[in-house]
Amino acid sequence: MEIKVTLTTNPKTKPSDESKLGFGAIFTDHMFIMNYDEDLGGWHDPRIVPYAPIALDPSAMCFHYGQEVFEGLKAYRTQDDRILMFRPEENLKRLNASNERLCIPKIDEQLCLEGLKKLVSIEKDWVPHLDGTSLYLRPFIIATDPHLGVHPAKNLLYVVICSPVGAYYAEGLNPVKIYVETNYVRAVRGGMGFAKTGGNYAASLKAQDEANSLNYSQVLWLDGVHRKYIEEVGAMNIFFVTDDEIITPKLEGSILPGITRKSSIELLRSMGYNVSERRLSIDEVCDLYDKGKLKEVFGTGTAAVVSPVGELKYDDKIMVINNSLIGDISQKLYDTLTGIQWGKISDNFNWTTEVK
Amino acid sequence: MEIKVTLTTNPKTKPSDESKLGFGAIFTDHMFIMNYDEDLGGWHDPRIVPYAPIALDPSAMCFHYGQEVFEGLKAYRTQDDRILMFRPEENLKRLNASNERLCIPKIDEQLCLEGLKKLVSIEKDWVPHLDGTSLYLRPFIIATDPHLGVHPAKNLLYVVICSPVGAYYAEGLNPVKIYVETNYVRAVRGGMGFAKTGGNYAASLKAQDEANSLNYSQVLWLDGVHRKYIEEVGAMNIFFVTDDEIITPKLEGSILPGITRKSSIELLRSMGYNVSERRLSIDEVCDLYDKGKLKEVFGTGTAAVVSPVGELKYDDKIMVINNSLIGDISQKLYDTLTGIQWGKISDNFNWTTEVK
Repeated sequence: MEIKVTLTTNPKTKPSDESKLGFGAIFTDHMFIMNYDEDLGGWHDPRIVPYAPIALDPSAMCFHYGQEVFEGLKAYRTQDDRILMFRPEENLKRLNASNERLCIPKIDEQLCLEGLKKLVSIEKDWVPHLDGTSLYLRPFIIATDPHLGVHPAKNLLYVVICSPVGAYYAEGLNPVKIYVETNYVRAVRGGMGFAKTGGNYAASLKAQDEANSLNYSQVLWLDGVHRKYIEEVGAMNIFFVTDDEIITPKLEGSILPGITRKSSIELLRSMGYNVSERRLSIDEVCDLYDKGKLKEVFGTGTAAVVSPVGELKYDDKIMVINNSLIGDISQKLYDTLTGIQWGKISDNFNWTTEVK
Repeated sequence: MEIKVTLTTNPKTKPSDESKLGFGAIFTDHMFIMNYDEDLGGWHDPRIVPYAPIALDPSAMCFHYGQEVFEGLKAYRTQDDRILMFRPEENLKRLNASNERLCIPKIDEQLCLEGLKKLVSIEKDWVPHLDGTSLYLRPFIIATDPHLGVHPAKNLLYVVICSPVGAYYAEGLNPVKIYVETNYVRAVRGGMGFAKTGGNYAASLKAQDEANSLNYSQVLWLDGVHRKYIEEVGAMNIFFVTDDEIITPKLEGSILPGITRKSSIELLRSMGYNVSERRLSIDEVCDLYDKGKLKEVFGTGTAAVVSPVGELKYDDKIMVINNSLIGDISQKLYDTLTGIQWGKISDNFNWTTEVK
């Protein structure tokens, strides 16, 4: 299928101060859009058009039954002014895994990769220049059937929007304080925790809100069955470092298979570390902490890349990790991943895709 | 707050054949709408306007993070041409319970009840006449912030749309075949199963689809922790009738507190039946069946009111209930509830609200 392009005749003014971009609040001049209609043979009419509101019937399924999935990835500007995307094919593969769980017809990953490249190419002047900034890409799919029956949609939209975003750590890699959630549950095996779908995020808002009010920046989820195994941090996967092991929860269906998680495991193993994907209970974490064996804790995700954890609160127990300082392994992982993403070091894994 | 009314100048043609209304596919001339803006002091500008598409920025939160809740209730035309709503105040109360879980600002239930009455009054000619038909009302709230950060929305819309719907059982009360789901999970305690929110329905699509392909019309969910306690049927709560007890799962946070469920419990108790709200395992159901003690099984919900279950499939075990015929208690409950709803029998519970 050919991707048709209609350029805006009314381009926006780009942000003048790249130190104040924030996250996800400013959008570029164009978006990629493609329709699915069962009656018209599936996904059709891929196109790049001026960024504009989406008008839907009030009965559109996505307003009622949450049949929606999304992805998040970034385009980075290198010092020699090339534009790189980080493992975009992994995002499109995961989008199709989410689609499968949500009964959304699969997209053509190759076509959508071409669409991402073409869109970023058109918006290349929107990729910011300041250190740590990037162009965040948000592919998403919504069900649009104007019908209140509960059934898999026959009409959907695939859309990609772009947002120039600031450095996650404007003042350096500050360790975050994390609240171990014991009341609310994000997802359970058999549910849709592994899919990147609206409902998982909706389910997390309340706990996040309560943690924020206690001055914790994010929530660490425990499993919904035993209420004791570590899952994820909502916006990040999580890793625990001891003297001889780096542990991250294994993928059992209830946590997001993060692409930064996967890349971190591959990188750390290539550096010679012993990385285990296994079940890890909060009791084991407490025990490691009490014995002085918990050296570092960090999260991984597209937004922060690597986010050191300085404090974990579990019931009345406060665990201060590495004196609330970033650890050596977290720092090395952060430097390597961001080095590859911004083209500062050689990409031995062939993870980046240059946008011409 | 005053509810402003703008009537359409271009009314639609009403469906000519009320035997072919179906469910949720046809919408009336007007909708109720109200905005929430944190900056403008909360919910404001309640109004009834011509039914029209909703235009949102592509970054609107409801497209990405599923912060959305809804309700469903009906307006009924009586034989003497009055219009009744069934326990609308219960729907608005439940909407606020959903709001609380989803970090959505509470609505003014009294104002929204006035809005429902006013909307139905304006659309009274859309309430169909044929036996078993009604006007389905769908209040819903969506988060509209044009922002990709994951946080409770500061901008939302409350909307009510109306759809004339057909008799659920066009050919009489046919018992349905239900598939006991052992692979997928709908919700777990600590999650948002008790809330009427998109994610719960999105999570159900896959299992529903697989059950349909095996010729079962709906799925019976088991709890997400033990995978053995009966929960609900997605679109209905469920009741099991033995010689001396009518059992329905108690509300523990993972199932929807149905208003038809609540009304059924109250009605059955007033008729002298012993109704238990308690945990009931699928093993106990099988045991009751094997001993010949399982007399009737039925679901309750707004759409079907009472839906007799003719067959339950659990793994390889097929349980045919009451020879796939509707039972006496199911029939009596159906007749009484629908009798009250359509104003055929006296409303001793004061459940109906007449729309003048």
